[in-house]
Amino acid sequence: MSEQLVEKLVHWRRDFHQFPEVGFLEMRTASIVATILDELGFELQMGREVMSEAECMGKPSAEVTKEHYLWALENGANKNYMEHFSDGYTGIVATLDTKKPGPTIAFRFDMDALEINESSLDSHYPMKEGFKSQLPYRMHACGHDAHTSIGLGLATLIAENKDHLSGKIKLIFQPAEEGTRGAKSMTEAKVVDDVDYFIASHIGTGVPHHHFVAANNGFLATTKQNISFSGVASHAGGRPEEGKNALLAAAAAALNIHAISRHSDGVTRINVGELHAGTGRNIIADQADLKVETRGENSSVNEYVKQQVKQIVAGAAQMYGVDYHMETVGEAISCISSNELANVLHECAEAKSLFQASTVEVNAAAGSEDATYFMKRVQDNGGLATYCIFGTELAAGHHNEKFDIDENTLLPAVELLYASILSLEKHAQMV
Amino acid sequence: MSEQLVEKLVHWRRDFHQFPEVGFLEMRTASIVATILDELGFELQMGREVMSEAECMGKPSAEVTKEHYLWALENGANKNYMEHFSDGYTGIVATLDTKKPGPTIAFRFDMDALEINESSLDSHYPMKEGFKSQLPYRMHACGHDAHTSIGLGLATLIAENKDHLSGKIKLIFQPAEEGTRGAKSMTEAKVVDDVDYFIASHIGTGVPHHHFVAANNGFLATTKQNISFSGVASHAGGRPEEGKNALLAAAAAALNIHAISRHSDGVTRINVGELHAGTGRNIIADQADLKVETRGENSSVNEYVKQQVKQIVAGAAQMYGVDYHMETVGEAISCISSNELANVLHECAEAKSLFQASTVEVNAAAGSEDATYFMKRVQDNGGLATYCIFGTELAAGHHNEKFDIDENTLLPAVELLYASILSLEKHAQMV
Amino acid sequence: MSEQLVEKLVHWRRDFHQFPEVGFLEMRTASIVATILDELGFELQMGREVMSEAECMGKPSAEVTKEHYLWALENGANKNYMEHFSDGYTGIVATLDTKKPGPTIAFRFDMDALEINESSLDSHYPMKEGFKSQLPYRMHACGHDAHTSIGLGLATLIAENKDHLSGKIKLIFQPAEEGTRGAKSMTEAKVVDDVDYFIASHIGTGVPHHHFVAANNGFLATTKQNISFSGVASHAGGRPEEGKNALLAAAAAALNIHAISRHSDGVTRINVGELHAGTGRNIIADQADLKVETRGENSSVNEYVKQQVKQIVAGAAQMYGVDYHMETVGEAISCISSNELANVLHECAEAKSLFQASTVEVNAAAGSEDATYFMKRVQDNGGLATYCIFGTELAAGHHNEKFDIDENTLLPAVELLYASILSLEKHAQMV
Amino acid sequence: MSEQLVEKLVHWRRDFHQFPEVGFLEMRTASIVATILDELGFELQMGREVMSEAECMGKPSAEVTKEHYLWALENGANKNYMEHFSDGYTGIVATLDTKKPGPTIAFRFDMDALEINESSLDSHYPMKEGFKSQLPYRMHACGHDAHTSIGLGLATLIAENKDHLSGKIKLIFQPAEEGTRGAKSMTEAKVVDDVDYFIASHIGTGVPHHHFVAANNGFLATTKQNISFSGVASHAGGRPEEGKNALLAAAAAALNIHAISRHSDGVTRINVGELHAGTGRNIIADQADLKVETRGENSSVNEYVKQQVKQIVAGAAQMYGVDYHMETVGEAISCISSNELANVLHECAEAKSLFQASTVEVNAAAGSEDATYFMKRVQDNGGLATYCIFGTELAAGHHNEKFDIDENTLLPAVELLYASILSLEKHAQMV
Repeated sequence: MSEQLVEKLVHWRRDFHQFPEVGFLEMRTASIVATILDELGFELQMGREVMSEAECMGKPSAEVTKEHYLWALENGANKNYMEHFSDGYTGIVATLDTKKPGPTIAFRFDMDALEINESSLDSHYPMKEGFKSQLPYRMHACGHDAHTSIGLGLATLIAENKDHLSGKIKLIFQPAEEGTRGAKSMTEAKVVDDVDYFIASHIGTGVPHHHFVAANNGFLATTKQNISFSGVASHAGGRPEEGKNALLAAAAAALNIHAISRHSDGVTRINVGELHAGTGRNIIADQADLKVETRGENSSVNEYVKQQVKQIVAGAAQMYGVDYHMETVGEAISCISSNELANVLHECAEAKSLFQASTVEVNAAAGSEDATYFMKRVQDNGGLATYCIFGTELAAGHHNEKFDIDENTLLPAVELLYASILSLEKHAQMV
Repeated sequence: MSEQLVEKLVHWRRDFHQFPEVGFLEMRTASIVATILDELGFELQMGREVMSEAECMGKPSAEVTKEHYLWALENGANKNYMEHFSDGYTGIVATLDTKKPGPTIAFRFDMDALEINESSLDSHYPMKEGFKSQLPYRMHACGHDAHTSIGLGLATLIAENKDHLSGKIKLIFQPAEEGTRGAKSMTEAKVVDDVDYFIASHIGTGVPHHHFVAANNGFLATTKQNISFSGVASHAGGRPEEGKNALLAAAAAALNIHAISRHSDGVTRINVGELHAGTGRNIIADQADLKVETRGENSSVNEYVKQQVKQIVAGAAQMYGVDYHMETVGEAISCISSNELANVLHECAEAKSLFQASTVEVNAAAGSEDATYFMKRVQDNGGLATYCIFGTELAAGHHNEKFDIDENTLLPAVELLYASILSLEKHAQMV
Repeated sequence: MSEQLVEKLVHWRRDFHQFPEVGFLEMRTASIVATILDELGFELQMGREVMSEAECMGKPSAEVTKEHYLWALENGANKNYMEHFSDGYTGIVATLDTKKPGPTIAFRFDMDALEINESSLDSHYPMKEGFKSQLPYRMHACGHDAHTSIGLGLATLIAENKDHLSGKIKLIFQPAEEGTRGAKSMTEAKVVDDVDYFIASHIGTGVPHHHFVAANNGFLATTKQNISFSGVASHAGGRPEEGKNALLAAAAAALNIHAISRHSDGVTRINVGELHAGTGRNIIADQADLKVETRGENSSVNEYVKQQVKQIVAGAAQMYGVDYHMETVGEAISCISSNELANVLHECAEAKSLFQASTVEVNAAAGSEDATYFMKRVQDNGGLATYCIFGTELAAGHHNEKFDIDENTLLPAVELLYASILSLEKHAQMV
Repeated sequence: MSEQLVEKLVHWRRDFHQFPEVGFLEMRTASIVATILDELGFELQMGREVMSEAECMGKPSAEVTKEHYLWALENGANKNYMEHFSDGYTGIVATLDTKKPGPTIAFRFDMDALEINESSLDSHYPMKEGFKSQLPYRMHACGHDAHTSIGLGLATLIAENKDHLSGKIKLIFQPAEEGTRGAKSMTEAKVVDDVDYFIASHIGTGVPHHHFVAANNGFLATTKQNISFSGVASHAGGRPEEGKNALLAAAAAALNIHAISRHSDGVTRINVGELHAGTGRNIIADQADLKVETRGENSSVNEYVKQQVKQIVAGAAQMYGVDYHMETVGEAISCISSNELANVLHECAEAKSLFQASTVEVNAAAGSEDATYFMKRVQDNGGLATYCIFGTELAAGHHNEKFDIDENTLLPAVELLYASILSLEKHAQMV
């Protein structure tokens, strides 16, 4: 049976890998996920049912979404489910209610790819094996293809063993984790409000092959903002005083944003990663656009930086008499895994010998994750939540064009998550 | 008679030179001027009678004013007139009304000194002749001692010849020309509202010895502003995020003020001449003060720059969440001398051979003068106004610690101004 | 005969208008110009013979040049002359040496178009008459099509009357006047070193229809620079300290460049018109590019600003530990037309009644022209040079997508220039 | 005997409190310390013997030093020792060599006061008890008067018990701890090169009364720098282009220094605490001075920031064509207390019941201390070092004008340090 499952896991993963879809456009992926889960007997909630429209951040334009929809239809999407996803609300919650008393356990899997051009070197495994991305500048370079595949594998085991299970199991397939854009929307749609145990997971991230980390802490709270300044163009030689200079407003904003004070409550990060302004050498620039990212050791520190950014942008606009617009296109909070839940997973990992080594907790900083929204909501409601890592051999770092995982990690990941269900049912009884 | 007058002129000038008083503190000077004019039979208006309190700019504090008052009393001020000047309103308008029909002619003389430490080198003429400033960091380094003396000389000639004159003559002794702070206040007090011909004059300014310029145009409009930012101090190591950084607000303001756009209607000048911020290395600075000066080829161009400064200061304050305060401590407008009046003076100069050479008009830019307020008011009312220069041999440039004029310029200056009265009486009849 | 010439002028102009070529790519245009001049009996120097390679500024890449070459061959270029122009050296000097004693007189005509998308409104004359640009984002929106046509018209008259002429006549067809990129290259190739009288001309520029200006002064010296900063990218969350931030270097440069001091010798202009930096929100930007333009009332004032820009760019690079590169992609000096020559043209215009009105000199500031290089070289060698304007009815301002001239201006322009030759032959004898 | 010692401790402390001397000027204090230690039989090394001249940072000028020397002589300094201290090298190392085998144990006491105006409210204990500072703007507001007193108390106990001791004991009296200026100089003079156990101590710092902390970790590495820019003054209206603007260089430096990147290896702090530039509104500022402070979680992070500051200052100077000068006027490294030594002290504290509570280690961040130089040198040589805290009731925070300690803390502090000597002699035997 395991061999059959491995075959499926690899098949799914390679299929998703060939058709990578970026955040809020995971239509083909979602339609395939839905098809399989439907067949396995899960109850499905899809699209706007599980996503708050107002809380989607950095969603592509209607035009881009429409275009991708047509692409998906021509590239293997299952038409039957596409009505749910066609507007770019691509989340799915698949529930198995055993109707027997027991806890509600939820798992989060993210599905989106990146705007990276995958390597076509022969040494790159997906190239060699013929499952390289079919699209330029689209690539599963962070392992979400594997995550989705693990989710489907877990669903398979659950479906096969449903008579031995109790309580309720929810599998959450989330769009747009990259840029931390999708989780808040699903959290606000209350998809984890009834959850007792919540487990998010990730493959790789530097954890060695065959190693397991039950609680990966240290995610930074983060906010991604697009900022634009709109002024008035004017001929720089003829009528310079008639211009309202958006370029200088942006330059002043960029410098002063980087000069935001450190915070004594925790580390911060600030980056104006892009600045594009002006359309001609001899024209006072009337438009400037910035892409900004802030991070904080905890949500309140990040919030401090965010407020300072706001103040600086308003001030820079005022300085140059230009208008400004700020849009939050991604956001994640900080959250610490529940130690009690991490211990349950750690014990599963050690008991089953699914991994060579298991660690209860690791503090790996500097990255951000929006699974933290789910986690905090569950914890706020009295549940337990953790973020675990399946170590794997990486061909290259995450977000690298040569990124690749070891597919041997897929099965133990599925088996550990399945085992955790059994352990948590027991844990629930003991509490 | 001329010899006697020269003696007086030199005496007065040297007396004022020894007791230099800065803007709005010309109490000793004014009391002596008042004494002499009173004796000569002029009708006097003094202090608040000829100065709008609200329009005085950059006036010293009450404390400083009080202190200087006591100093003046102990250093030769005439107690009898001091009640008019004790609060720092040191302007005088001396009127001779001939009661005969004729034009109203006004002359402006400024009285204030500078905060400069006069040279005590033996080669410096006032040092050698024993009339060097008796006060450290106070010096008549711009010739206003000569101007006041010329005004008194003119008053003397007028008084001696009053039976031959017609119309009305007004001698305006203005405080605080330095920093362009005093003229607006007298203009707003309507002291030139009845004037047909207005003549301001200056000694030196680079015009060669024995030369006369009937109309010195090209004064730049200007605004002098004191700007302060007030934030919140905080320990830079312990609680940096609690500070509101006035130093950075000021630095951002200074840079962006200098980056204000050029104007296609005329030249501009911008200078943040001083910036003082902070009280300790390890404290977030909660206070910052700037001294700013803007200029424009005309008043509207200067107004443009001034508005930009305002916008930038408000924006810088907003950036750092600090409060700000802006105070205009000096201002002058632009104004072009009336060509018709300049020609009258030029003809006087040529006819009388008081000078070796006379020029109708010179365009010497980059400086500013608040006599322009008087000039514009007179012109707006249909009168004529000009700003003339008495060339002299300068020992060093204006505002230099070794500045000195040639006292031989005093008499011809007085005689020319007196001659102009006679010419203008004729001119008025011809119009 | 005039009617025939008008027909030709209009034909040429409309042909060039339909096939607009931007700076250093005027291959089709130049090959047609060469064909006609060759037929008319002029001696031709072409391409590198009349252009210093080292002094070409802002020349397109070899790739773009090659591509355009192929386009030109397919769109009416005369293959026989293309070897001269194929590398983008598209200048032509056509000389008629009468072998009779007399002055050397030169005329400058520029040939390049702009990257503007021509209007396709029916109200737009070229659209209505069917000679609109055949290329998107390429348009003769500054009248250089007319200039080239006038040059050919002048050549026609010269050829027809060559037996009545003496001295030498040089017709200079210049590439890349837009961006002030081409004239210096021809000047340095010494094409005007033997010239006694030099006449550059322009159509339009706000001068009314049927009016002529013999000397258009006030061109600002200018420098166009591309500036780039190259740093080191790094993950803004994970390893911010490893980045060398090109975006902040560029922002600091932009602000401080705008803060360059005014100059007391004349007006200046400064603009950072474009700033593009960074490739990702969460990456320290390793690349930033700026397009900068400076101007000065005279070459020395512009040189001052240029030096300051250089200093600031070097300083900004040092601040952030990044490399920088500066390239001058356009430059023009200031030059005042020779009044003596302007008077000759003015008298021609008045004598022949070719225009309703003629003005000797106009001071229209704020624009720049690289014909000044030719002018200054001629003047430095003891010759006379002027820049004259043929007023015309403009449908819209220069560089506007609806720009159009009145073709009735073409003939009088040609006739005036021809008449000036005769006058200048006489003038040369009188000197 | 304890009572007598308490009396002495209080007497010394109050005497020092009345005559506070700031860094490198502790002449009176040092001469009194020397007198007492000499009487107690310690071998003394003083002044340049124990301080490397080259490593003194932020030392007052010779003039200020001379002036203070005269003051000290008139205010109770012991003339006999003043030759050692008259040039401002005020350090003392007092050694008791028992000539018996045993470890070398060193204690550091700092002696300097602050430029703070002590409160004269009756509620302020030193005021009420009549031992308030006799000098305006000089105050022991950080407890170094108590430290010096504790050092003398410890010396007294050592002298009284010297026959029971073995090894060598060194008492280090350090100047200029404030601003972290003096310790490096003594370390470089090798005063701790032979030390096996090193104990620095501080009173207060927020630790509760009667509590003891054996190892206070978390001191930030820090650098204090004075930075000046020197340009060229020029009249802002007349010749702005001739100025080289030090004010703008300073403003650009300040902004960009604050924008220095965060470091992923640890927290940083940056502050431009003071900026003073310019001498007149209408003069391009030719001088600007900044006071800057950087900190880092460890020395290498602080070094990173310091290098960035250097780069930015050089770049800002280059931008404006001005000269610059940077001087390090204070510096401290980071260092972690030796846990083994901390445990010995902790056990002493608990065994003797000298304090109500004792903690082995506390991590109190954000401050800096130059005792870290001594600590690191000792640890580098294989010895143990710690920094301990004697908790006390504070009337107000450190560096506050109402700061005061509870004098009841003096005796237990002395007794604990003395007890540690006995424990360390034993510890040395066990190792």
